[in-house]
Amino acid sequence: MWHLKHNNYKTDRLLEEESLFTVANGYIGVRGCFEEGYGSENIASIRGSYINGLYDRVPLYYAESAYGFPQEADKQPRIIDTQTCKIYLDGEQANLSTHKFSDYSRCLDYKNGVYTRSYSYRTETGKEAIIQFRRLASLKFINIFIYEIAVKYDGQIRLVSVLDSGIENYTNEYDPRVGSTHAKLMELKGFKVEQNRVSCLMETVRSKLEQATVVDYKINSKHEYEINHVVQSNKLITQIDGNQTIVLDKLCVFTDGLRYEFAENSANDLADCVKNMYFDDFVKYQAEYLSKCWDHSDIRIVGCKKNQAEIRYMLYQLLQNTGTDKYSNVSAKGLSGEGYEGHYFWDTEIYILPLLQMVQPETARKLLEYRYNILPSAIIRARELGHDKGATYPWRTISGIESSGYFPAGTAQYHINADIAYAFIQHFLFNQDYNFLVEMGAEVIYQTARIWLEIGNYSNGQFMINSVTGPDEYTALVNNNYYTNSMAKYHLYWAEKIFKMLSQHNDINIRKAHKNLCARIDMKCDEVAKMLNASEAMFLPYDSDLKINPQDDSFLQKPVWPFEKSKYPLLLNYHPLTIYRYQVNKQPDTVLSHFLLEEYTNENVMRNSYDYYEKLSTHDSSLSACIHGIMAARICDINRAYSYFEQTVSLDLENTHGNTKDGLHMANIGGASLMVISGFGGFRINEKGISLRPQLPARWKGYEFKIQYRNREIKVSVSDKITVNLLSGEPLQITIWDKKHLLSDTLNQPLHTANDGL
Amino acid sequence: MWHLKHNNYKTDRLLEEESLFTVANGYIGVRGCFEEGYGSENIASIRGSYINGLYDRVPLYYAESAYGFPQEADKQPRIIDTQTCKIYLDGEQANLSTHKFSDYSRCLDYKNGVYTRSYSYRTETGKEAIIQFRRLASLKFINIFIYEIAVKYDGQIRLVSVLDSGIENYTNEYDPRVGSTHAKLMELKGFKVEQNRVSCLMETVRSKLEQATVVDYKINSKHEYEINHVVQSNKLITQIDGNQTIVLDKLCVFTDGLRYEFAENSANDLADCVKNMYFDDFVKYQAEYLSKCWDHSDIRIVGCKKNQAEIRYMLYQLLQNTGTDKYSNVSAKGLSGEGYEGHYFWDTEIYILPLLQMVQPETARKLLEYRYNILPSAIIRARELGHDKGATYPWRTISGIESSGYFPAGTAQYHINADIAYAFIQHFLFNQDYNFLVEMGAEVIYQTARIWLEIGNYSNGQFMINSVTGPDEYTALVNNNYYTNSMAKYHLYWAEKIFKMLSQHNDINIRKAHKNLCARIDMKCDEVAKMLNASEAMFLPYDSDLKINPQDDSFLQKPVWPFEKSKYPLLLNYHPLTIYRYQVNKQPDTVLSHFLLEEYTNENVMRNSYDYYEKLSTHDSSLSACIHGIMAARICDINRAYSYFEQTVSLDLENTHGNTKDGLHMANIGGASLMVISGFGGFRINEKGISLRPQLPARWKGYEFKIQYRNREIKVSVSDKITVNLLSGEPLQITIWDKKHLLSDTLNQPLHTANDGL
Repeated sequence: MWHLKHNNYKTDRLLEEESLFTVANGYIGVRGCFEEGYGSENIASIRGSYINGLYDRVPLYYAESAYGFPQEADKQPRIIDTQTCKIYLDGEQANLSTHKFSDYSRCLDYKNGVYTRSYSYRTETGKEAIIQFRRLASLKFINIFIYEIAVKYDGQIRLVSVLDSGIENYTNEYDPRVGSTHAKLMELKGFKVEQNRVSCLMETVRSKLEQATVVDYKINSKHEYEINHVVQSNKLITQIDGNQTIVLDKLCVFTDGLRYEFAENSANDLADCVKNMYFDDFVKYQAEYLSKCWDHSDIRIVGCKKNQAEIRYMLYQLLQNTGTDKYSNVSAKGLSGEGYEGHYFWDTEIYILPLLQMVQPETARKLLEYRYNILPSAIIRARELGHDKGATYPWRTISGIESSGYFPAGTAQYHINADIAYAFIQHFLFNQDYNFLVEMGAEVIYQTARIWLEIGNYSNGQFMINSVTGPDEYTALVNNNYYTNSMAKYHLYWAEKIFKMLSQHNDINIRKAHKNLCARIDMKCDEVAKMLNASEAMFLPYDSDLKINPQDDSFLQKPVWPFEKSKYPLLLNYHPLTIYRYQVNKQPDTVLSHFLLEEYTNENVMRNSYDYYEKLSTHDSSLSACIHGIMAARICDINRAYSYFEQTVSLDLENTHGNTKDGLHMANIGGASLMVISGFGGFRINEKGISLRPQLPARWKGYEFKIQYRNREIKVSVSDKITVNLLSGEPLQITIWDKKHLLSDTLNQPLHTANDGL
Repeated sequence: MWHLKHNNYKTDRLLEEESLFTVANGYIGVRGCFEEGYGSENIASIRGSYINGLYDRVPLYYAESAYGFPQEADKQPRIIDTQTCKIYLDGEQANLSTHKFSDYSRCLDYKNGVYTRSYSYRTETGKEAIIQFRRLASLKFINIFIYEIAVKYDGQIRLVSVLDSGIENYTNEYDPRVGSTHAKLMELKGFKVEQNRVSCLMETVRSKLEQATVVDYKINSKHEYEINHVVQSNKLITQIDGNQTIVLDKLCVFTDGLRYEFAENSANDLADCVKNMYFDDFVKYQAEYLSKCWDHSDIRIVGCKKNQAEIRYMLYQLLQNTGTDKYSNVSAKGLSGEGYEGHYFWDTEIYILPLLQMVQPETARKLLEYRYNILPSAIIRARELGHDKGATYPWRTISGIESSGYFPAGTAQYHINADIAYAFIQHFLFNQDYNFLVEMGAEVIYQTARIWLEIGNYSNGQFMINSVTGPDEYTALVNNNYYTNSMAKYHLYWAEKIFKMLSQHNDINIRKAHKNLCARIDMKCDEVAKMLNASEAMFLPYDSDLKINPQDDSFLQKPVWPFEKSKYPLLLNYHPLTIYRYQVNKQPDTVLSHFLLEEYTNENVMRNSYDYYEKLSTHDSSLSACIHGIMAARICDINRAYSYFEQTVSLDLENTHGNTKDGLHMANIGGASLMVISGFGGFRINEKGISLRPQLPARWKGYEFKIQYRNREIKVSVSDKITVNLLSGEPLQITIWDKKHLLSDTLNQPLHTANDGL
């Protein structure tokens, strides 16, 4: 199954399907709205298109402000709407509100990277038209988004294509997960018409970033036709009149003022480069691109078509929504909606990058480059917070500024510093790329590590970190959050280790570059020694009665949340103070640390902790199920793991959280794929190398994935046995179920089952 | 010294002097601006008049909102400006910007309750005018505020008196202690002119409360004069033309829609009642009223005129700014400014009521009635916060709704429930008024006590209260805050005790009323038993190394704030997260509990704690110095106590916090007087009766105060000996320096000194 296909037209699902059928390429994303409109005002629509990394700035208001609260935030603007193309057949407007259609279907094809929607439409005259829309966001030419509208009709055909600059962002004052103010983020600077090329220049209202769109109209028809352009207030309307058959290509080029000094000129230049290309030409490039991509990063599931289709959908959306340059990242909702205002969170580092590191190392590197690119903002923010040294990454941002307006569940999540460092360290573990490390990684790791020395302190010889919030946002401003402390311990350990590695590296260029870096940021041996000391002295909460790691110093002294009589999600039904007073988890906290830092975790404590916290979890966050699933697999509860997998893969496809309309849940999408590789496959990486603990869910006959590791490609196939193939690269040692093996070609191992006494 | 007198005209002090020379009567307050204006745009002015209890509602905006955040807040509106009366002498406008004046003085007279300002003014013609302004806010007729403008000049005199409805509140977006938005809170509904009576009806913008002002102009002149009224947009202007001598009485009657169904009619009726009265008639009533008042509540200081003058100023401002009906209370800034948006805080119960309970029991009772009056709002708020039972009083309010927009230092201060209960319990201790107890006190005490059972929980047999903020706002959302837990313990203990007392009372009417109350609020024996259990099991943090009560569970594990290299106040210079991570106090927390609950405090722990926390205190809050002073006296460090006393009494008079312009610091004013009685005098009250520990600061020769106690009046005089007189009422037992004495007439005791080995 290489596609998502819907043959049913259901008006009550159209809004969420706009997210599901998003077409994007990491740069430009267009929601799956209808070109011709829904034909009814009763059908809600969020008719959005977005450019990754583009931001406006909006003021943040506080009922009571305090020193250091961010005064403005980034917000991803909805850009010009290029989707509209109305269809008139013998003067009659065609759309699906009239129920005179048949053979409706739409399909997102992952192999060719094309979206197709088509139906037959019967006009009042009784004649039937065949209408087909295609869309493609070019993965090779990322500024290109092309629409094709094809109409066959034995009569007069009129197409009315619109560039609508009168767009406003979606707002909802009742849902904190959606922006509540500042709908108008883009202003029209002007339209231009030159023959069949039309263009529009816009600008963000406050950040003053230009955004240019050039559209070349190309018509393929054996019959005569006429084309006219007219500007009506904030719309540029192109009308094509013909008959019998019209195939209209609407080739859009998008640029922005973030990446281009002269956005409009660049868009025109780019349009000129592809002016002779038609839709099918782009399909050819797209299929080529995707073929390579799937070759390395596909996950195969044998024995369950549904799960196979779901996981491919996840992988494809991840590809579509991931930024590929230093200006962009992966928004909480990708390019598929306006939830969380288009902000980038730690979701990338902890839910998406672990997967990309395995299967798409170059993309992983790009996402890390973005973090390096915004390091200066993180340094400025650290000064605002009163730190003499170091950098504090923003909890949510686009351009790099802290855009979180509620610090107890925002700025207080200092762990984001460790999460970002963790991703750089993982990149090093996967690639041993000392050049990248000395060029970018080390600087980020050092500057972020400094903050632990700033906010931590020794108490009775132990290093404590007070007044922070961990990943679980149902508990805030606590002391010695286990996740934060354990991640900080790891972070500080690596900071010192990297300092030593780079200072003593064989390659003199690496040593020199590191020396320069250290001079530039005033990093010296004694500071690094302090980091190692803090790491070694780090206090990690442990409860000897329950034999678990408590989430923080006081978590266990609180009563357990009264789950049975509650309304969910808690955040929409209870005051934070009420929630904070109980043992209750929105998402994994200690359990997540046990996943990320398994090598430092005692097996029994990990199991006990999992059992303890899973019972306290509401899974109100979409970041919850996948980690619980991975860890269920880790403790060999494969059925429980599979149940979480099902929750994860259905979250958007079945809209189980009720807010898929605001965009796809990207962290969950990353987590779903991770569930196969790190969950069922039990893949881990650490200083000692890579390891697997493969298991097979009862519902499957097998599964298969590939890993990129230090210039090698390794294929893992699991069925009634475990097969590991070294597809390319040098032989290596690999650990399977705690036993070391030399992998030089193919390794076969029996499949463990839960009965093996694991 | 029965007055505050300034003979110097200093333009850079005028703004703070507007607060200092406020004239008020607990209902209406008018800042000490100049009738004729300052004559220069370079002199800032907050030209405010206020009605106690009147409120508008303003929306609260959040950068990120959450469930249960208040969506609107009360805000005290600036009401119509009646202060203006410009003076023209032979056509030349007289004001002090021209430096052609002499003999300037202004005086607030505490015996007659009159404010006077006067100067001589030389016009261009070389002739000299004598100009005098007087103001009086009637303490007997609280709707009346009267201005007298008297001009003697050998020439033409024109007075231009203005009612200006175009008022807006003061806002400051950079100071969280002042409102930042919503300046326009009152709208003009209409002016009326009938002969020499003019009136103005206004209405609050959102809460739709009317406010009516009727002004009777009365002119006393031996010469001919003419009077004309004209409305110019939002101003009603009255012009009086005469010569030689004019004495203009501007008798203003204020009413509001909170207290009067028909505010305008009522104002007219009230004006009719006093229509034959002139300024001096009001002075007579005022002096009579004040004579009685001072007779009971004066504090005399012998041997230091400056301190005597300061403490009288404090007492007089307390009288002027304290509400005297169930609709009003004492704002953080009284009626003297717009700081903290006119909100009522716990300041009343903990800093002001302890004094009023001693010297003005009826006023104390009125303030408690206000709390009873807003109990229904507190019940609604408790439901919003997810509590099935009980009431949570708002952290800041006017009408009763929670108006705090930052919950970690607002709603999280659950201790306000105990503070209010404490004040009701004190009232009972002072008056043994079972009727008031069963009528109002018990209901408030029960409903507020219920919240401890809602938010507390047992852990290892101890009753814990998690996720609260204590009085010290430099520490937030902590577990087992000592202040909160100790006050809750006391509160729960009394709830049970009162339940038993009232259930078993001799008077059948009391018993019946209590039974009805308990039926109405579903209060039963088993719930009361739970309260007693929780009280007895209450966890009170104690550190056996330092032998102090830690402020909360984790306070001592944090590092001490780096005091030397810091900028103050911290809240205007550091992010809350930075502040929260340290041991640092904005104001007393544990130390305050030791003052309020001395009877339950171990002497050594109290001393150790004082020494410990005092070093951590920035005194950034105006609620800090007085309590530290009282407790310094308690541990017999009389010099340190006196130093705090000096800080306290000079805070507004010398504008040491730099924000007296926003109004007088009422809690500090209450605390200053309390410093004499409970600090130097060492007065305490508890279940066992009243006690004294009098000491004499080195700078004084003596001091004297009176206490009202269960239908008795007791005078305490301290000089080289201690004299206690029973001025009225039955003999009683009184404890002096831990020894019991029978007070039937006069008791003489030697004065202890620090050398007595205390």
